[in-house]
Amino acid sequence: MDIKERSLALHKKLKGKLSIESKIDIKNKDDLSLVYTPGVAASSLAIKENKEMSYELTGKGNTVAVISDGSAVLGLGDIGPLAAMPVMEGKCALFKQFAGINAVPIVLDTKDTEEIIQTIKFLAPSFGGINLEDISAPRCFEIENRLKDMLDIPVFHDDQNGTAIVVGAALLNALRLIKKEIDHIRVVINGSGSAGIAISRFLIELGVKDIVMCDKDGILDPEDNKLNSVQVEMAKITNPKRLKGVLKDAVCCSDVFIGVSAGNVLKKEWVGLMNKDSVVFALANPTPEIDREEALAGGARVYGAGISNTPNQINNALVFPGIFKGALEARVKNIDVDMMKTACYALAELVSDEELHEDYIIPSVIHEGVSKEISEAIKKNRF
Amino acid sequence: MDIKERSLALHKKLKGKLSIESKIDIKNKDDLSLVYTPGVAASSLAIKENKEMSYELTGKGNTVAVISDGSAVLGLGDIGPLAAMPVMEGKCALFKQFAGINAVPIVLDTKDTEEIIQTIKFLAPSFGGINLEDISAPRCFEIENRLKDMLDIPVFHDDQNGTAIVVGAALLNALRLIKKEIDHIRVVINGSGSAGIAISRFLIELGVKDIVMCDKDGILDPEDNKLNSVQVEMAKITNPKRLKGVLKDAVCCSDVFIGVSAGNVLKKEWVGLMNKDSVVFALANPTPEIDREEALAGGARVYGAGISNTPNQINNALVFPGIFKGALEARVKNIDVDMMKTACYALAELVSDEELHEDYIIPSVIHEGVSKEISEAIKKNRF
Repeated sequence: MDIKERSLALHKKLKGKLSIESKIDIKNKDDLSLVYTPGVAASSLAIKENKEMSYELTGKGNTVAVISDGSAVLGLGDIGPLAAMPVMEGKCALFKQFAGINAVPIVLDTKDTEEIIQTIKFLAPSFGGINLEDISAPRCFEIENRLKDMLDIPVFHDDQNGTAIVVGAALLNALRLIKKEIDHIRVVINGSGSAGIAISRFLIELGVKDIVMCDKDGILDPEDNKLNSVQVEMAKITNPKRLKGVLKDAVCCSDVFIGVSAGNVLKKEWVGLMNKDSVVFALANPTPEIDREEALAGGARVYGAGISNTPNQINNALVFPGIFKGALEARVKNIDVDMMKTACYALAELVSDEELHEDYIIPSVIHEGVSKEISEAIKKNRF
Repeated sequence: MDIKERSLALHKKLKGKLSIESKIDIKNKDDLSLVYTPGVAASSLAIKENKEMSYELTGKGNTVAVISDGSAVLGLGDIGPLAAMPVMEGKCALFKQFAGINAVPIVLDTKDTEEIIQTIKFLAPSFGGINLEDISAPRCFEIENRLKDMLDIPVFHDDQNGTAIVVGAALLNALRLIKKEIDHIRVVINGSGSAGIAISRFLIELGVKDIVMCDKDGILDPEDNKLNSVQVEMAKITNPKRLKGVLKDAVCCSDVFIGVSAGNVLKKEWVGLMNKDSVVFALANPTPEIDREEALAGGARVYGAGISNTPNQINNALVFPGIFKGALEARVKNIDVDMMKTACYALAELVSDEELHEDYIIPSVIHEGVSKEISEAIKKNRF
């Protein structure tokens, strides 16, 4: 059986990948009195007196909601809340496995920006953090920004920020390997949805000076009235040489290609037009923008992808467990860009100079201790 | 240490009573590919094709949300969402322990009826059922009714309906013991909040003809403009003899007293005014309307309370795990009054004629198999 058939069979067998367990075995009336009424009243009253005690007496401080409207799921697009649930459950399983965090999958029966914001605002007291997931652009920007302002717990849209951090770490290590300076490279980002825009913004923070963003019509043009306001803004602040044209024109003479777009859109010949020691990150799922073999044959020196069956898997699972673990343990109210950079550098540094290699610029997703390193770095920078 | 100190210490140690576990140990990339991308896409697509598959491929069908706005918590009143969390976590622990159901505690940062309804409507696809908890009257009636109409999963306000079912079962067994007919008794219900009203409505369904409802001002008077609309309606459909007066007047010549009000409001002498073989259920928490010793000294033959340190503990935990287990397993869309009656009779029948005794009219909360009996009865009646 192929991976999809095996996965489907596993899902049928499990009927849900999560189990919510009581930490206490309630065997007798005394146990019940401790866990529930009348004993529980003492904890409720202590929190009523001092809200901060909710972090001491309930699971809030180690519980994250993974929330999606199912509008931009993996490579599947707008499949709706029920169909998004297997992905959200999977994400929650990773939260526990990689960071020991309790995560609750919540899918929403609305795609209205205001309704999503209101719903999350109202359910927020139950959680120590909110992981927004697979919400389509441009709504995801407003939803994340407004909730960040509104809530006193961290809010993180993983498709944007998690992707940006892991791409950033992979890029830092690729540059370390090929010995190019970050402020001297040209980076082409193909795809101007939530991930592409977040990667672009974050690479600017990391010091990249020359980014050229493309969508399916080619290099973003701020005059193009098909662009949304965020894309227009990005078109203005990137592309310092004011290049025009299609993807091929952008790729020509660039150092790095980052694809967050669709399968098979980058031709082998175009890779040959890139500068020497070129880097190709083909992150489209399940079919990358270009296969590893094609990219290397075309002349790329470093290749990374989102899918799991190649070296250099650039996967958010390297980041979100650790960044939430750090944010929860340090009790930060906002995952800001400094914290994202801290996480990015910590992730990159997990690959030593001795280990660094064309096929090892980023740790494996199941590398032990990734989330611990990232969370420790965040806590160190905070205290 | 007393129970509250011990419970507080336990809560401090645990930092949350629930743990969300992955059913699969994700040890390598293959596990990751099965649980998450790319394998998970097969389950998402299967659900996109046929929404019913969400019950086969995700945890929806065995997951309940326990949702409160923290406005009417136990004996504590309106303590707000954060302070309600220990109670909701406790309830979720009981769901798992007694019925194997995954339950997620969600507290809401709003007391607005419309906002609560909207929030629950939007997050509903994540769950197989909604257990409303500790929401104050009269909002709880509208919230429950509107959500029942709106959603295709069962919605159950446990403080109303769970309480009504367990009181009903205790009453049926008390009548079996004292050999009175249900349509010949007079029942006084003291307290006209959500529980009192729900009990009253359910006892009418069970066949009680003469119910007298009271609040702190005495027997409910339909002309009293301090009553809300639901209380006015209840005042009209109960009290066939049109009794007037204070609680003492109601209690006089009644057969059953059911208190869902406040501590120490029923005097020993008034119990003496009740008919022979009187039944007193004093459910106020943490201090009952009358102590067991006082009630028995006053002449009551059967005494039950909500607190755990007396015989005949009348506790919702006898009902909600089993009724949700039955509703989820039978995939019912609504927990209707017939299902409530089924659960009530099944619970009552767990006490055999041989076991039936003044101090054993209802099984212990930790009696093995209560939820199984109730859920089996529901499933039998449905198929």
